[in-house]
Amino acid sequence: MPLSPEQAKEIAEQRTQVFQTRRAVSPGMEEHLYTAYPVLDHGFVRVIDYMGDDAAICQAARVSYGKGTKSVQNDEGLIRYLMRHWHSTPFEMCEIKLHVKLPVFVARQWIRHRTANVNEYSARYSILDREFYIPEPDALAAQTVVNNQGRGEALSGAEAERVLRYLRDDAARCYDHYEEMISSDDQQGLARELARMNLPANIYTQWYWKVDLHNLLHFLRLRADAHAQYEIRVYADEICKIVADWVPFAFSAFEDYRMGGATLSSKALDCVRRLIKGEDVTQASSGMSAGEWREFRNVLDQSA
Amino acid sequence: MPLSPEQAKEIAEQRTQVFQTRRAVSPGMEEHLYTAYPVLDHGFVRVIDYMGDDAAICQAARVSYGKGTKSVQNDEGLIRYLMRHWHSTPFEMCEIKLHVKLPVFVARQWIRHRTANVNEYSARYSILDREFYIPEPDALAAQTVVNNQGRGEALSGAEAERVLRYLRDDAARCYDHYEEMISSDDQQGLARELARMNLPANIYTQWYWKVDLHNLLHFLRLRADAHAQYEIRVYADEICKIVADWVPFAFSAFEDYRMGGATLSSKALDCVRRLIKGEDVTQASSGMSAGEWREFRNVLDQSA
Amino acid sequence: MPLSPEQAKEIAEQRTQVFQTRRAVSPGMEEHLYTAYPVLDHGFVRVIDYMGDDAAICQAARVSYGKGTKSVQNDEGLIRYLMRHWHSTPFEMCEIKLHVKLPVFVARQWIRHRTANVNEYSARYSILDREFYIPEPDALAAQTVVNNQGRGEALSGAEAERVLRYLRDDAARCYDHYEEMISSDDQQGLARELARMNLPANIYTQWYWKVDLHNLLHFLRLRADAHAQYEIRVYADEICKIVADWVPFAFSAFEDYRMGGATLSSKALDCVRRLIKGEDVTQASSGMSAGEWREFRNVLDQSA
Amino acid sequence: MPLSPEQAKEIAEQRTQVFQTRRAVSPGMEEHLYTAYPVLDHGFVRVIDYMGDDAAICQAARVSYGKGTKSVQNDEGLIRYLMRHWHSTPFEMCEIKLHVKLPVFVARQWIRHRTANVNEYSARYSILDREFYIPEPDALAAQTVVNNQGRGEALSGAEAERVLRYLRDDAARCYDHYEEMISSDDQQGLARELARMNLPANIYTQWYWKVDLHNLLHFLRLRADAHAQYEIRVYADEICKIVADWVPFAFSAFEDYRMGGATLSSKALDCVRRLIKGEDVTQASSGMSAGEWREFRNVLDQSA
Repeated sequence: MPLSPEQAKEIAEQRTQVFQTRRAVSPGMEEHLYTAYPVLDHGFVRVIDYMGDDAAICQAARVSYGKGTKSVQNDEGLIRYLMRHWHSTPFEMCEIKLHVKLPVFVARQWIRHRTANVNEYSARYSILDREFYIPEPDALAAQTVVNNQGRGEALSGAEAERVLRYLRDDAARCYDHYEEMISSDDQQGLARELARMNLPANIYTQWYWKVDLHNLLHFLRLRADAHAQYEIRVYADEICKIVADWVPFAFSAFEDYRMGGATLSSKALDCVRRLIKGEDVTQASSGMSAGEWREFRNVLDQSA
Repeated sequence: MPLSPEQAKEIAEQRTQVFQTRRAVSPGMEEHLYTAYPVLDHGFVRVIDYMGDDAAICQAARVSYGKGTKSVQNDEGLIRYLMRHWHSTPFEMCEIKLHVKLPVFVARQWIRHRTANVNEYSARYSILDREFYIPEPDALAAQTVVNNQGRGEALSGAEAERVLRYLRDDAARCYDHYEEMISSDDQQGLARELARMNLPANIYTQWYWKVDLHNLLHFLRLRADAHAQYEIRVYADEICKIVADWVPFAFSAFEDYRMGGATLSSKALDCVRRLIKGEDVTQASSGMSAGEWREFRNVLDQSA
Repeated sequence: MPLSPEQAKEIAEQRTQVFQTRRAVSPGMEEHLYTAYPVLDHGFVRVIDYMGDDAAICQAARVSYGKGTKSVQNDEGLIRYLMRHWHSTPFEMCEIKLHVKLPVFVARQWIRHRTANVNEYSARYSILDREFYIPEPDALAAQTVVNNQGRGEALSGAEAERVLRYLRDDAARCYDHYEEMISSDDQQGLARELARMNLPANIYTQWYWKVDLHNLLHFLRLRADAHAQYEIRVYADEICKIVADWVPFAFSAFEDYRMGGATLSSKALDCVRRLIKGEDVTQASSGMSAGEWREFRNVLDQSA
Repeated sequence: MPLSPEQAKEIAEQRTQVFQTRRAVSPGMEEHLYTAYPVLDHGFVRVIDYMGDDAAICQAARVSYGKGTKSVQNDEGLIRYLMRHWHSTPFEMCEIKLHVKLPVFVARQWIRHRTANVNEYSARYSILDREFYIPEPDALAAQTVVNNQGRGEALSGAEAERVLRYLRDDAARCYDHYEEMISSDDQQGLARELARMNLPANIYTQWYWKVDLHNLLHFLRLRADAHAQYEIRVYADEICKIVADWVPFAFSAFEDYRMGGATLSSKALDCVRRLIKGEDVTQASSGMSAGEWREFRNVLDQSA
């Protein structure tokens, strides 16, 4: 359970308070505000604040004096046009602030997206909680043998049991020692900024993360992708649901042009033209490497 | 007059609409929303949207589950501490979106602050209005003779008249020709993206500009400074008034530690220590260059 | 002619000096160093400095202790893989510093690429030269009638003559007045930071512009594109030639995957699959809007 | 020992190769190139590449056609002026690329400096080495009791011994299990991207880190500061030595204006003025909080 009763109470209190504002409001997003959606065994994602909605994207694109909305149909068309032609600045005019609780090894991937603002819980000044990510059995994947990236089938039997025992026992022991080291009962007590080095990378941390919609969609394209590590993808999937309610037109265009789309190379486009003409194209005649050809065939073979 | 009746009406309509939200609300800021505050002869600044308030800065610094506010006094102390110790990330958790109308030569300075989001009115696709910045007589400054930067006294008499005549007439003629060139009456009509090159740098443009509070304060420190060019400083001054109502604690700390403060070099601190001991320090004995010494004396001689 | 004899001499002197270094050296790039390649009527692009080469991209991707190069073939394959899978960070490990002279209206487009470092010649402190961009007759394009973007045919006859006369005469007169206003002969002399506002947007400015290879390629993809304004595209084209000699593998991958490639939406991919199966697909049965369909057909109809 | 014989050999080979270049060369920096300077028990810092020197800062500030150097004295004065007046863009025209080996908990602090380019060794695809940071006895600091930040005295006796034993044994056991889990001998073998979660934060990672001089100096100001955590400060100190040889004028100005300087608030400057006049100022009459007053007295009491 990701929240203590006290934390749940603080969040519930925040949700009861309603204020008046002149700002643009996204009704779909208001419903999500503050709610902590569980991710993995102890993590969550929750929206702390947001700025803008679909109309705000159009308003900025038009540099409008008023709301900038002409008609709902017109706005959707403009948003699709902007997405299709990679006009990113109007999407930067929406902003979201999230509170995320996540394992440290996931946080290390996440932070590589630099165009965002972050305040992380400080293990220099504060004591971390005893909470570690232990995968569910079906997420306990073997190293893939196809290439050196990603995962294969789930482990099973004695091997799975041993892995889970290691993860649980090592985390527990490391945390016991962390606590002992920082304790100031009958001893000086090691500095927190040092003691934290004994904690494994599956311990949970948390942060406030604020990002504009353009950069958020870029993050989602990479991290909600099938090739992303499962443990960050589940966060991205949860955020996708929120964004779909926040800016429905922008998210729908994103799904069509980014998530469901594909970038074809000059060589691949040439093959497509030949295939449409009825020509038989093989890897040998395509000019592509084996890897490129496989990826190209995958794009063509997917059902829409 | 910066606004057409139609624009004024659009803005007035936006101000009448009030919505309910669960988000943090800054009452001082709500009052400013959408109002176009006049700057220079045809320009303005107006707030389109904002995220966060003083409490949101503390909430992020504490990575809180709830509002993160302990007490008003406590929050002010925390904000002052964060500002004093250059902890910038909590201030990045507030965001503002402005609609600004400004002369092109001011826009060219402004855009050099890169950590912001911008949508500018496009002179490639649209036709610019016939509006040019013509300085007030007391802003018609001579080149300073002290150094090669900034301004001296205002011009007077025939010289001032001639300058104003040039600025007005050249702008008018250039705009007449711009209109003639793009006209498609009885001719092909020059592409707008080309015709705009005939317009002088005092023509007005406009943009939506979105920035976080940390970067906004950095902008204000440089542009609301006495050494900034007058024509950008008046925009910065107007924004300062808005920020003071939006996040009063943060702005007050900013005034104390940044705007009213000064960074002293190692040599300058050494001189301060000697001066406090009653020693007589001169430029020669200070180790500073003439320029540094003059700037140092200016800091000491200012009344608080 | 973009260079004065004195400037040409300074550049020639720089090119004669050769130093020893342990750093990675790109022989193709060394040939370009400092040479000012003319662009438009008075502009130029020249390389001031660079960091890295194709091998440096691989070295960073492998976090190598040595050069990081395995074999030339291996390196090219890795670079193509990185480009295909949008792994941008290894390309960020190369850097280029350019000196560019360009019209102000081009500079205003260029500066919108924020992830770069810029030092521009200051018209606050210095006096701009009397140099203005006047288009060649075949670049004097009419506004397109298809949509409100871009250009149509070149103007001709009396209309073309009149446009060129306006551009030349207005620039000359504005510059005459600029000079008169800042003159301190028998008068105070207007501050330069003010006088510059009288200069039209086709006056030339210049800057040092430093950017990493990833962001440079992004710039080139947008600005060397057929839809970019001609006056910025000629700069991008000139830079493309330089980059092709600097990092040949990276540039070739960029040409295949970015410049010559295309991003197809989910709907477009579905149409491709149906077309390959021999199905007859029309706009009506495609699910695309008229604009999307036209763009999609353009991609398919291009010869490779 | 941070390097294997094979790695040392690769580095030595790189150092023997010398090339010819037309680019600006910093002789002081050439000496450092590729050498791995040891930091902590298994870490190092080494320069992989650099761009620019002191003259390049001046060249960019002057937007020069040639080298941009007027005289050595003139250049130093200009650099000091730029530093004093926070003109940051000329310093952005120099760039450095480092290869750093560092404990994960240090890497997590370091990465918070976002304006840099990073390629980190991937624990998703590769196997991490068995190398952990174990503090020297005098770095084994107790939690400070003054405030909740930073460190007190070193631990001693049985407490120190126990801490070191925990750190060593837990790291060893976690690494043993990491190896067992990923082994594919007689079992499927856990995916590397999952197994890494069992490794504590004192394990070493490594990356290529590229940053411009302005942002590097900002990093050094915060991380070479007495309040920075010791384990990151030793890296910053090592980098300071390198920068001092690379751009001696810029580094000397940095030491005077940033490292040895201090920012005084409006209230503090007021106190300075009163103290110089011979007035007796106390915390009560200063208008400062206890914390501010203590920090202010520390600045005044430091010997230059």
